[in-house]
Amino acid sequence: MRAVDIILKKRNGQALSDEEINWFIQEYTNDNIPDYQTAALLMAIYFNGMSRQETLTLTMAMVNSGHTMDLSDISGYVVDKHSSGGVGDKTTLVVLPLVASFGVPIAKMSGRGLGFTGGTLDKLESIEGFNVNFSDDEFHKLAIENKLILAGQTGELAPADGKLYALRDVTGTVDNISLIASSIMSKKLASGANGIVLDVKLGSGAFMHDLQSARDLAREMTLIGVDAGRDVIALLSDMNQPLGTTVGNALEVLEAIETMQGKGAEDFVEHCLEIAAYMLQLAGQGEKWTNHDALRDQITEKLNNGEALAKFRFMVEKQGGDVTVVDNPDLLPQASIKNDILAMQSGFIEKVDANRIAQAALVLGAGREKKDQPIDHTVGVEILVNVGDEIAEGDVVARLHANDKTKSIAAQSYIQDAIAYSEDVVEPLPLFYGVIDGRSLD
Amino acid sequence: MRAVDIILKKRNGQALSDEEINWFIQEYTNDNIPDYQTAALLMAIYFNGMSRQETLTLTMAMVNSGHTMDLSDISGYVVDKHSSGGVGDKTTLVVLPLVASFGVPIAKMSGRGLGFTGGTLDKLESIEGFNVNFSDDEFHKLAIENKLILAGQTGELAPADGKLYALRDVTGTVDNISLIASSIMSKKLASGANGIVLDVKLGSGAFMHDLQSARDLAREMTLIGVDAGRDVIALLSDMNQPLGTTVGNALEVLEAIETMQGKGAEDFVEHCLEIAAYMLQLAGQGEKWTNHDALRDQITEKLNNGEALAKFRFMVEKQGGDVTVVDNPDLLPQASIKNDILAMQSGFIEKVDANRIAQAALVLGAGREKKDQPIDHTVGVEILVNVGDEIAEGDVVARLHANDKTKSIAAQSYIQDAIAYSEDVVEPLPLFYGVIDGRSLD
Repeated sequence: MRAVDIILKKRNGQALSDEEINWFIQEYTNDNIPDYQTAALLMAIYFNGMSRQETLTLTMAMVNSGHTMDLSDISGYVVDKHSSGGVGDKTTLVVLPLVASFGVPIAKMSGRGLGFTGGTLDKLESIEGFNVNFSDDEFHKLAIENKLILAGQTGELAPADGKLYALRDVTGTVDNISLIASSIMSKKLASGANGIVLDVKLGSGAFMHDLQSARDLAREMTLIGVDAGRDVIALLSDMNQPLGTTVGNALEVLEAIETMQGKGAEDFVEHCLEIAAYMLQLAGQGEKWTNHDALRDQITEKLNNGEALAKFRFMVEKQGGDVTVVDNPDLLPQASIKNDILAMQSGFIEKVDANRIAQAALVLGAGREKKDQPIDHTVGVEILVNVGDEIAEGDVVARLHANDKTKSIAAQSYIQDAIAYSEDVVEPLPLFYGVIDGRSLD
Repeated sequence: MRAVDIILKKRNGQALSDEEINWFIQEYTNDNIPDYQTAALLMAIYFNGMSRQETLTLTMAMVNSGHTMDLSDISGYVVDKHSSGGVGDKTTLVVLPLVASFGVPIAKMSGRGLGFTGGTLDKLESIEGFNVNFSDDEFHKLAIENKLILAGQTGELAPADGKLYALRDVTGTVDNISLIASSIMSKKLASGANGIVLDVKLGSGAFMHDLQSARDLAREMTLIGVDAGRDVIALLSDMNQPLGTTVGNALEVLEAIETMQGKGAEDFVEHCLEIAAYMLQLAGQGEKWTNHDALRDQITEKLNNGEALAKFRFMVEKQGGDVTVVDNPDLLPQASIKNDILAMQSGFIEKVDANRIAQAALVLGAGREKKDQPIDHTVGVEILVNVGDEIAEGDVVARLHANDKTKSIAAQSYIQDAIAYSEDVVEPLPLFYGVIDGRSLD
């Protein structure tokens, strides 16, 4: 086989065979096919797309390019969740203890944030001592002992995806639905889950800006999962405004703890309820937790009666974290400057632009633009209003947490740009736009 | 400027600015932009094309990436020709002395063949001692002294084109009309000609297989030349069957000499007449040689009265070649095995497939598949029939010149495959399909 013939075949609009895709990915992973031929193939895929079969084959080729997790000794059926990334998305911190409190074993690998705000691992590292770095053996041991672990990748999952993603980033070939879906799903499949809840976000603060492209991506990812023999449910959720009230690492841990104390913001609680309910439905495999409404009531109870928080405290303790911050969240690290931002007029909130809020958080130091860049866990933004809220001039709409005056001023201007007002009544934004259930998909 | 933004712009269907194209080509030539980003841009160009302005800018950026020839001290107006490459195309060997015999100074740089058969330089090197390698200064000195020189490139013309072409070859991005046209024209423009006759061939033995794609390429190249301030005439000529009666280096020199002795094959003589006439029309700049028919008569006279041959002998002498082979062409090096191929039936010649004939010549050793591969100047094929000829079973239709029995047998099978017969009358192939005159193009 020759790489140039495979490039020409895709360029000319023909479907690639399983053999061709497997060969190309294997040889690329082993550095036998150069980046320039792979870049040409990626651009041809951008223009001519890939069929359902090609997308599955590409995904599995990336899965098989490296280490795959076997979690069958932890549970007969492992459930996982994945978020396509959003602003203020601390859902994992709440949902994992919640689901674990139902007796479902959870062994999740998470990533660091690349982009505006920190990832789940960055948020957890706001808790002093919390360890997310384990070897394969340690991860397995803790998963079996504790039945709840949240850590970084133990081995190199889907190395072909890592290599391809870095190349796509610099060759203008990121935004193709098959390439995006296969990239995300290759890591999910390699990490060994049987059931996966996908939280696909759309809006100004998400990778997908409109409903149609988010639905296309969700459907593509669901099909890959189903074709690979997994159960998948994808939720389409709003990311035009930030989720919950905080954006920033320690601030989000604080919000997560308060939510598990029964004091969560309405939108964030609702989001956690839906994600947790679908995870439990998958974990129940049609034998239990089949009634969505009844399940939501049970979840709400565990959120309010401290069971979820107890599980969270247990996880922090088992991973070496300082549990005193769980018992007394005021001890979480705090920024030195706090700066209230006031409503500029009376009326209704028309917009809280998630992208601009994220830029404010980035300016403050809460995120990273380059890999391995250090981040400041204490800084961030509190957003105290949602679209549709009625406010009076001078009300506090947001609060900055900063460690640098100049950065604080820059962030303030982003936040003032982010929030728009109206004299007329404004409808609140929906939290969800739909559900794609892979168990009943053709 | 960032390379990835330029890739995205082209990928999204927008035209690139002069500044963007110039920057990209300059940085690529200086190894500051990697091959993988260039490969992605080339594939995006393949799908989204380039405007007339973009194509001109790309061409000039490649021209300006290296050395350019200044021939203004040789003549106020320099005329050149270019062939898109064909089988048995020894036109330059005849046409240059012909045009020079009208007193027009000729200083041409030619290339070596990469593909089935040798290039013009390879053919000339069949003459013992003939030197094609000169420094810039030597080339200029000889051009001024002799007013006729045919040699290899003295410096590195359009190095960006060389680098891009090598990349296109392995990334499936060769066959885009703007990229092909800019590649050819960058070298022509860098070599300093004011007037250029383009011989764009079409058919089984040419790069372009059909009339439409050949016409598109000819028009694209003509526009580039015109936009760059040059006079260009493009001829569309047939390459379904070989040109003239020989394919192979020394054999083609022999045919060229015989043609200048007034004994040329009808199709080849006609081809030389047209190319020479258009070169002279450009050289005359509308002040002389304006009547095409009268000009053809004058050219025919110089072909038959020995003036063209005298110029050829002069060039061979001045470039150190053995003139005794010009005076007595039987002294040209010859292959050891000669093998007649006979007509398999009586009737009419339906096809003499140029591509298969070229493959036969390659098998015999007349061409090279890789750069710097040695070639055998003596081997090749004589083709004694044209499409439409009436023949009787057992007539000699072709003759192999070989130095190796096994290769001879392989070549024979290619030739037998190349020639098809019909019981019905077959129309001869046209020699030309049209002319595109850049002087009257919008």
